Amino acid sequence: MTRDDAFLDGRLVLRQPARGYRAGADAVMLAAACPARAGERVLELGCGAGVALFCLGARVPGLDLTGLERQPGMADLARQNAAATGIAARIVAGDLSAMPTALRAETFDHVIANPPFFGPGTRAPDDSRAEARHEETPLETWIDAGLRRLRPGGWLVLIHRAEALDRILSALPGRAGATAILPLAARRGRDAGRVIVAARKGARGPLRLLAPFVLHEGAAHEGDGEDLTPAAQAVLRHGAALNIIHP
Amino acid sequence: MTRDDAFLDGRLVLRQPARGYRAGADAVMLAAACPARAGERVLELGCGAGVALFCLGARVPGLDLTGLERQPGMADLARQNAAATGIAARIVAGDLSAMPTALRAETFDHVIANPPFFGPGTRAPDDSRAEARHEETPLETWIDAGLRRLRPGGWLVLIHRAEALDRILSALPGRAGATAILPLAARRGRDAGRVIVAARKGARGPLRLLAPFVLHEGAAHEGDGEDLTPAAQAVLRHGAALNIIHP
Repeated sequence: MTRDDAFLDGRLVLRQPARGYRAGADAVMLAAACPARAGERVLELGCGAGVALFCLGARVPGLDLTGLERQPGMADLARQNAAATGIAARIVAGDLSAMPTALRAETFDHVIANPPFFGPGTRAPDDSRAEARHEETPLETWIDAGLRRLRPGGWLVLIHRAEALDRILSALPGRAGATAILPLAARRGRDAGRVIVAARKGARGPLRLLAPFVLHEGAAHEGDGEDLTPAAQAVLRHGAALNIIHP
Repeated sequence: MTRDDAFLDGRLVLRQPARGYRAGADAVMLAAACPARAGERVLELGCGAGVALFCLGARVPGLDLTGLERQPGMADLARQNAAATGIAARIVAGDLSAMPTALRAETFDHVIANPPFFGPGTRAPDDSRAEARHEETPLETWIDAGLRRLRPGGWLVLIHRAEALDRILSALPGRAGATAILPLAARRGRDAGRVIVAARKGARGPLRLLAPFVLHEGAAHEGDGEDLTPAAQAVLRHGAALNIIHP
């Protein structure tokens, strides 16, 4: 069972599984944060049905897009989405923790990933280690696999829960730098729920902790109306880029 | 040569060296973030003339305060400041990288530190490692020394440049958790210049990335007037606490 979901104000309609995990705003934000330019090669680890990949392809024409996806059914959906959208992408079925031979021989200008995680409600409180054990592929393995596939100077861009920030930053020293952290907050004044972390392979530039990107207006949801901030509308509706790295 | 500097709207007048490093707003913010309660024992690593220690003592009566300071002249100033303010504090002259025997036998409920760093203008751009080499005592040594002096469940609270966040977070896993990160931004929308990081020894709770604390109103400094935000005035002028950890 699949369903069609609309992204970028309907400019992109993508088929996703009707049940289980479906990509949403996180994937769109990830695509917006990738600083790829026409002619560059981009790999998404765990691309699912390709939401981030196709949002990126819709914003930046002329990219060479590759998605790696472990579940064959999801990889098939991603291929269907490539055909339906007309955005060319090579989808490789395989496990990032046992990188397919074809990809081992390649390097990319950018690697993006939105590693899966359990929602706040499914996790034992105060026990982040137990949760780490439950991850099918540890977050550190995602980061390692991404850095290996990057050319020197290439950018790794991840979106993940803010509470994993220490694990992400601990995996980078000596391998990537010029790290930019963009906190994503549901509303102004709230703790960050997500972070986007961009790091440049082999770079030694200083880390930057950016001002939060705030998704919703006001202190709480009021009424039935739309309450996305103008910045969130620009990214989620109109496909704007999130410029989080220095040029 | 010394001079008298006023803190907390003049409630605290502290003697500092007229030349070289003088503690300022960072020390006041650090003191505000320490969650110590009456009766608890607090150690400051590198206390200088004691600005953070005495701001904390002024806010929370009944603390058992200890400061460790490597420079004997600074330690003497801190003792003079204890006498002048009437806030009792034991000042130990010694080096945190060779912890004095007296302190090795002790544990504390809280350890605070504002490790010195070179300003943005004194550092070669894009070379944080060169800078790390210039630190007389590495940041990691400060964190290690602090964690060793804490009781299990005790809080380490640091203030440092935001760009050191990766080094701070990399030094904590397996030793401290329930980490709270408070970005300090000069103005809304700016990158964080400083971070306050609080971590609990032996804890495994999730990391929290808090909304930034904004120091100044508006997008840029205008005119000669005072432009601290109400929140910054509360902390820097009126000695309010920064409640950055869960109770």
